[in-house]
Amino acid sequence: MKDFMDKDFLLKTQTASFLYHTYAEKMPIIDYHCHIPAKDIAEDVHFSDLTELWLNADHYKWRLMRAAGIDESLITGDSDHYDRFLAFVKTLETAIGNPLYHWSHLELKNYFGIDLPITTDNAKEIWDRSKEALSSPDMSAKNLIRNSNVEILCTTDDPVDDLAYHRIIKEDPDFSVTVLPAFRPDKAVNIDKAGFVEYLEKLAKVTGFSIGCLEDVEKALLSRIEYFHDNGCRISDHGLDHVVYQEMSKEDVDKALKKALAGEALTAEEIRGYQTHVLCFLSGEYKRRGWVSQLHYGCSRNNNTPMFKALGPDSGYDAIMPASTDSDLIRFMDCLETTDRLPKTIVYSLNPNDNALIDTIVSCYQKGPAKCRIQHGIAWWFNDHEPGIRQHMITLAANTHLGSFIGMLTDSRSFVSYTRHEYFRRILCDLIGDLVESGQYPYDEKRLQTIVEGICYYNAKEYFGF
Amino acid sequence: MKDFMDKDFLLKTQTASFLYHTYAEKMPIIDYHCHIPAKDIAEDVHFSDLTELWLNADHYKWRLMRAAGIDESLITGDSDHYDRFLAFVKTLETAIGNPLYHWSHLELKNYFGIDLPITTDNAKEIWDRSKEALSSPDMSAKNLIRNSNVEILCTTDDPVDDLAYHRIIKEDPDFSVTVLPAFRPDKAVNIDKAGFVEYLEKLAKVTGFSIGCLEDVEKALLSRIEYFHDNGCRISDHGLDHVVYQEMSKEDVDKALKKALAGEALTAEEIRGYQTHVLCFLSGEYKRRGWVSQLHYGCSRNNNTPMFKALGPDSGYDAIMPASTDSDLIRFMDCLETTDRLPKTIVYSLNPNDNALIDTIVSCYQKGPAKCRIQHGIAWWFNDHEPGIRQHMITLAANTHLGSFIGMLTDSRSFVSYTRHEYFRRILCDLIGDLVESGQYPYDEKRLQTIVEGICYYNAKEYFGF
Amino acid sequence: MKDFMDKDFLLKTQTASFLYHTYAEKMPIIDYHCHIPAKDIAEDVHFSDLTELWLNADHYKWRLMRAAGIDESLITGDSDHYDRFLAFVKTLETAIGNPLYHWSHLELKNYFGIDLPITTDNAKEIWDRSKEALSSPDMSAKNLIRNSNVEILCTTDDPVDDLAYHRIIKEDPDFSVTVLPAFRPDKAVNIDKAGFVEYLEKLAKVTGFSIGCLEDVEKALLSRIEYFHDNGCRISDHGLDHVVYQEMSKEDVDKALKKALAGEALTAEEIRGYQTHVLCFLSGEYKRRGWVSQLHYGCSRNNNTPMFKALGPDSGYDAIMPASTDSDLIRFMDCLETTDRLPKTIVYSLNPNDNALIDTIVSCYQKGPAKCRIQHGIAWWFNDHEPGIRQHMITLAANTHLGSFIGMLTDSRSFVSYTRHEYFRRILCDLIGDLVESGQYPYDEKRLQTIVEGICYYNAKEYFGF
Repeated sequence: MKDFMDKDFLLKTQTASFLYHTYAEKMPIIDYHCHIPAKDIAEDVHFSDLTELWLNADHYKWRLMRAAGIDESLITGDSDHYDRFLAFVKTLETAIGNPLYHWSHLELKNYFGIDLPITTDNAKEIWDRSKEALSSPDMSAKNLIRNSNVEILCTTDDPVDDLAYHRIIKEDPDFSVTVLPAFRPDKAVNIDKAGFVEYLEKLAKVTGFSIGCLEDVEKALLSRIEYFHDNGCRISDHGLDHVVYQEMSKEDVDKALKKALAGEALTAEEIRGYQTHVLCFLSGEYKRRGWVSQLHYGCSRNNNTPMFKALGPDSGYDAIMPASTDSDLIRFMDCLETTDRLPKTIVYSLNPNDNALIDTIVSCYQKGPAKCRIQHGIAWWFNDHEPGIRQHMITLAANTHLGSFIGMLTDSRSFVSYTRHEYFRRILCDLIGDLVESGQYPYDEKRLQTIVEGICYYNAKEYFGF
Repeated sequence: MKDFMDKDFLLKTQTASFLYHTYAEKMPIIDYHCHIPAKDIAEDVHFSDLTELWLNADHYKWRLMRAAGIDESLITGDSDHYDRFLAFVKTLETAIGNPLYHWSHLELKNYFGIDLPITTDNAKEIWDRSKEALSSPDMSAKNLIRNSNVEILCTTDDPVDDLAYHRIIKEDPDFSVTVLPAFRPDKAVNIDKAGFVEYLEKLAKVTGFSIGCLEDVEKALLSRIEYFHDNGCRISDHGLDHVVYQEMSKEDVDKALKKALAGEALTAEEIRGYQTHVLCFLSGEYKRRGWVSQLHYGCSRNNNTPMFKALGPDSGYDAIMPASTDSDLIRFMDCLETTDRLPKTIVYSLNPNDNALIDTIVSCYQKGPAKCRIQHGIAWWFNDHEPGIRQHMITLAANTHLGSFIGMLTDSRSFVSYTRHEYFRRILCDLIGDLVESGQYPYDEKRLQTIVEGICYYNAKEYFGF
Repeated sequence: MKDFMDKDFLLKTQTASFLYHTYAEKMPIIDYHCHIPAKDIAEDVHFSDLTELWLNADHYKWRLMRAAGIDESLITGDSDHYDRFLAFVKTLETAIGNPLYHWSHLELKNYFGIDLPITTDNAKEIWDRSKEALSSPDMSAKNLIRNSNVEILCTTDDPVDDLAYHRIIKEDPDFSVTVLPAFRPDKAVNIDKAGFVEYLEKLAKVTGFSIGCLEDVEKALLSRIEYFHDNGCRISDHGLDHVVYQEMSKEDVDKALKKALAGEALTAEEIRGYQTHVLCFLSGEYKRRGWVSQLHYGCSRNNNTPMFKALGPDSGYDAIMPASTDSDLIRFMDCLETTDRLPKTIVYSLNPNDNALIDTIVSCYQKGPAKCRIQHGIAWWFNDHEPGIRQHMITLAANTHLGSFIGMLTDSRSFVSYTRHEYFRRILCDLIGDLVESGQYPYDEKRLQTIVEGICYYNAKEYFGF
């Protein structure tokens, strides 16, 4: 029996252990997609206890606690901090097989030096020791990032953001980690969602353009792309139900937009026509500037209306959508490629059944000199667990070129979730170790190093070219 | 090499073996969903040979025999009993990797004390020894159930059933197993299926209401819910193509019903509107009474018309449906939650691709104090095999809280299929053993006991509160 | 650690090794579906170097090279042969976990006796030694087939083909391998695709019928079925987006055809009505003659328009389609069974999510005396890798009768891809070895031999009855 979460956690073979400890764990982190607020870095926030650090904003943990039958007052309520922590511990101690179980232990070990199983028996000791540790200046936002060996970090930002906090971070001579914005213009794409018109007004105000037609939207977005580019942005992100593709003349798209601006309801076709047009327009601009485009889709959000009214979005009430039933992703990519507007793109679906399908679709748009110009992004959100990450890579290896994969990101709001990179790297090395020790790949140290270091660090560095 | 199906069958690690033999195998069985006819228990039926016990009603076995090329006369025909048994043995001996292979061997071993591989070479001996064993009074329906350590058993019953057999069973002072009815009102929901009007007539007759409008249907169903409740029922079951959700005013639903009563054809929208309304109404009544609602969906039935004409339903001609392509399950649950009508619910899909999707959907409706108020039911029917059960639990553990899972049921028509609980418990312990021995969960005997005994028994006991 | 791809490659257990070396590897090959041009066999082509053998026609390899960022000039361009080979080697050496990695090594070892890892370091030696080997007469098309222990090989042929090359092959007294045509009438079914009318003209010319109505199409196809039958054909093949089923009167189908012949656009319903009618008609004729029908579906082809214009079809730009969302496959099969027109059929979907669904659908149409009259074909194309093949068989074993499975085919354009049968057989024996050594199936040599030899050879021999 292996010891519980020791140094060879998730590393079943000697080869896996060797690859992890010799190569993988030493690589810096390029965290090219996360949801940390730039403000929190700029202000170098501190946390006073584990409840603040772990439970104040993490809807993964809230969700697990609800499943375990914990009362909401101990989850998002204003109960005593220790009581909330204890409720989480009570949840976690029987959450066998859940990634939160492992992440939490890794975080305790790596950031707090606490090597205890998280149980109600140990709760008090963990609480006290972690509280003391958090009082140290080492535990500020910037120091947590720095000590995690992060080289580059990309936040996720609205086009109307002035990126002031990014400039403040950049100007700190003592903080050498590169923190870049990412361009996420969902609100300008979601013509069907409440708040669209108000958002365009905000965009108009920020850019100084008045927005009355499609060209105005394009001009305004382009102006923000240029602003983000000047502030170091090299990556965008789109959150979509599914990738859409609806051919429509520019005139008709313009008419649809004007209907929306006039407060009229749009047909499904008009919605899709507008979204397709704007996505294609933006993609062309990303391509022109060498940006990487990210497409996240397959999430059904805010599915519990009473709790949405009580807590708002991102509070643990989201789910996987059914797999898409059309070939719009293919038609979208083919349109972009045909019109020379296809940027480097990373495709993520929340439905794990899409894995093989996406692997074979992205393979239709590969073209040198970039290695895997179109990437199938790592197992996302609900799939970001040991079997999900492993399965994603096994399928990716079988259908595309694992050696060119750009690997992990945190997708997180937390300053201690860089442990997810450790988690990923252990699974990667274990998967490779299995292939080597079962005679499916030679024990060729030089090439194994190339593959492992590539997926952990160099591939992303080369791919993004930040 | 491990011995063939010895005491450590499916238990790869020492931890797995320890957990199974120390905790899991000793737990009583709460078989909260099966298809055993109450009549057969009440009458304490006996079987004269293995063909009667195994082959007279088990369409799983029929289906496997057809795949192996056996002539129908030896499957559902009136051939000699031994010849039919031999044809089954001939099928089974090369059915490597099929759950029937394991279930049959477990049944022989547990109920007959026969430890022989089921082969044509051993067929005669197995036949003779089992025939002799079946002549013992120990092998009556009641004794088979009793000796299987069953504590509670829920049958599946039509609302018009008078539950007389349940009362007879209850009145037997020598039979201490609790046998409860379950409420399955499919025929009152399936407004689109032949026989709907006739069924409402039957319902009218049983309840004494005349049924001419929607309120009458509600009143009649409510009256049967109360009748079932008084007879100990605490669980319902719905068999659906897919979960539907169609908003429609009560007036329009009433109109749709009246059209159906008048023999007119309904639109797809009317069908869905009626079904949604009745399902929501029933759910509210289940909730009010603390019942658990089961939703089974994703099955395409009776797909071979010539054989359906020859043998009727449940004869081995069913299949998995494509995964659902909409979010009606979400909208259905959200509507119930918003209107305070969401009971404890167990969701089962026949399409295994739905596993992760369902795990994330049920997680949107968790609320204490119940642990996993909404459960993702165990791998069902065609998925009730070793890799299917394991995969279901791995995904469930990663996405929800395995420690709160209510575990197994037989879903069976047979008195010897309690071995499926053994099968499940072995897989459960093996899965947990893997996590422990690979260092992913500590060897903490107290918590492992809590998890294992919980999933085998205590979670269901607490969840149903029979 | 196991040695790299030694004699026990993919064989983890002693039982697996024993089964493979004692039984599986000695079985002849019945390659019942491939894309080798009969012309190349008839002309007994030779290859001058590995680039000609490996890279001139293999879009699997092209696709992998594009993923690795190789310039198109080194993939399909006219660059120096050695440079192209080297680019492939550079791609392959980090393609860990890809089936091409294993196939290429197996091919080098089996056909060239070269046991080196394929790396840039070894590239020159591999190139030189293989070039010398290719100069031997042993390396002609016929000798490669003969030395691969192929007994029967089925090509894939258009109904208008005169099968002259098949007759030439048959007349070669020195070549004892049976090479049979397969009937693939896609162009007569695809009424919605460009070239349909021209194709019917070609069919008219070949058959001597004029084609102006549905009966003419039927007569012409029937005439070609008879012609193919006389030339030894016993198997057909259909490539479909998805299996369709649309009821339509023969008169309306005839009208739809006439519209198409007149160059008019058809409705979706008309297209489906015509396709359903022709597929059902053909199926009835296959059944009458004891042919086996193959249905391949779920592929989205030619998804990159610029590259399609440059290179045409089959150049590495295809992808998996979304899983089907209807039950047309069921309705199609049920219609055929009801009208006594259901031939032995092999169903293949390119979407691996369909595995369990197909297993349960084919099980609805089994009928003796054939073992698994309807087969779920082996993992196809993008799924033809170790985890894909294994998963397909695990699901098939759990849902149908593995002992009746007809096993592998190459689906290939290459004369050295019989290694895929070796690959499959190793995985098969390993899977069975796992079940035996873990105590899930007894170590019963006689029955294991029956299962292994059956799946490798005898089941196909009996099933096709060539």
